[in-house]
Amino acid sequence: MSSGENFIQALKVISERVDRALDHWLPQPSLPTSGRLNEAVRYSALAGGKRIRPALCLMIAENNGAQSEAALRAGCAFELIHAYSLIHDDLPAMDDDDYRRGKPTNHKVFGEAIAILAGDSLLTLAFEWFAGLSHYGVSAANTVEIVRLAAQAAGHAGMVGGQMLDLTYERRETDLATLETIHRQKTGALIKAPMQTGAILAGLQPDDCRIIEDYAAKIGLLFQIRDDLLDVEGDLAQLGKQAGRDAALGKTTFPGLLGLQAAQDYARRTLEEAHELALKLSRPMPMLTEMADYIYYRQK
Amino acid sequence: MSSGENFIQALKVISERVDRALDHWLPQPSLPTSGRLNEAVRYSALAGGKRIRPALCLMIAENNGAQSEAALRAGCAFELIHAYSLIHDDLPAMDDDDYRRGKPTNHKVFGEAIAILAGDSLLTLAFEWFAGLSHYGVSAANTVEIVRLAAQAAGHAGMVGGQMLDLTYERRETDLATLETIHRQKTGALIKAPMQTGAILAGLQPDDCRIIEDYAAKIGLLFQIRDDLLDVEGDLAQLGKQAGRDAALGKTTFPGLLGLQAAQDYARRTLEEAHELALKLSRPMPMLTEMADYIYYRQK
Repeated sequence: MSSGENFIQALKVISERVDRALDHWLPQPSLPTSGRLNEAVRYSALAGGKRIRPALCLMIAENNGAQSEAALRAGCAFELIHAYSLIHDDLPAMDDDDYRRGKPTNHKVFGEAIAILAGDSLLTLAFEWFAGLSHYGVSAANTVEIVRLAAQAAGHAGMVGGQMLDLTYERRETDLATLETIHRQKTGALIKAPMQTGAILAGLQPDDCRIIEDYAAKIGLLFQIRDDLLDVEGDLAQLGKQAGRDAALGKTTFPGLLGLQAAQDYARRTLEEAHELALKLSRPMPMLTEMADYIYYRQK
Repeated sequence: MSSGENFIQALKVISERVDRALDHWLPQPSLPTSGRLNEAVRYSALAGGKRIRPALCLMIAENNGAQSEAALRAGCAFELIHAYSLIHDDLPAMDDDDYRRGKPTNHKVFGEAIAILAGDSLLTLAFEWFAGLSHYGVSAANTVEIVRLAAQAAGHAGMVGGQMLDLTYERRETDLATLETIHRQKTGALIKAPMQTGAILAGLQPDDCRIIEDYAAKIGLLFQIRDDLLDVEGDLAQLGKQAGRDAALGKTTFPGLLGLQAAQDYARRTLEEAHELALKLSRPMPMLTEMADYIYYRQK
């Protein structure tokens, strides 16, 4: 079993491609009709990040011989949706965060009004880019399918609905099923959609598409359990053993609901299930297996 | 020349169809995963309004024999975009309005966090509905074209860009060209796109499509000049002649920039140009002419 080293290398190369593409494709601040807005859009969309969503789309598409430019464009559109969700999430009425990736949040730099509009602009631009896939050699039918699944992943039954659930259960006790639903909608949906898009662009058969969907659900879940476990480890290191354990286990998290050992077992089992799914693909995608390992073994 | 009476009648019938369709199609508050969010979405999307955008789409499509259900669905999707823009516009960080159409604004009822998410959800749902047009007998190529033009109309070069310009020039002197750009982006773009969509759904020839685009620009402009003139008349009635004239003409509006008489002439000239364009269509659309008259003759 790998520790995901190859995935980390591939991710680094892809994230540089994505940064360059976004810089090139995003509207310029010099446009007279929307200059300051485009500045705000670029500020957040070009603020780095792992570019995991475009990477997932690109890796699956390119592993199966799809046209790279179309996959890059679609992947970047998913990244716009991610960037918009962070801007709106950080607003004072939502999480009220002052910093994001070490830089002041969008509304801290541009003010709340422009931050709201910048988020709106990014979400809308994502759909303009999806619709424009037909100019990158993608059939109209596949373009429509990608718009549809992106909208479903980002909307009330996906990401936005997940944010709503998160608000609702922030100060309430919850159970494992609800916790998984929140994560599946809030972050899982926007992990799955770029992978489905990569599969569509590569023209994968329905069986393989279904495996990729299931695989996406597993790594989304794995990511969240590991994230919670890393938080516990952080708390343990910071607060000392007993206080850290109490702090971590009091929260609505996987270790909080299941206990530490059971959460670790759950992560392990989820990793193994992801590996088993990857083996069922009609054409191997080593990078998928590597990715699950990366998620499992990563440190904060 | 009519006073737009037939248009008002047709609009009333269509707005009832749109209300029923939205009520039927919008996600239910009973959904466990996004109930309160869907309540907020329905609160604003079902709060009435003239439904002018779906009406424009439907009138053009049905006048030319297009499938009504597809035009209704597309028109309703434009109405979702309109509803989202009003929710975000009303937020404290933007226009900070407490009332909209005589009811408390979305954030006054649901709080700012849910209002932001409700706007995001409506915008995303619009694209889900556009993408779903292919289930209503619309070709994939036409569906892609409609998604593309809706995204462009709603985005940084359209409505959101117009809101940004509006913020920028709120407290600044401007000229006629800038004022027209603000209106063309802020409201004109989302008048034009539903009309273009109606034309696409009806399979109109490129020449007719271009005439409809030009016509849409004229009535968007006409609407705004008349809106400004109605404001002046309101001020005149409320404040008395001289004070009202001073108040109205001090603002960045058409009468403010051109003077009262010249603004009235401009409105008249724009109406005539709209009528001339309508005459060039290869198949007459009496409702278009009626609509221009309605906009010209309407009272607040």
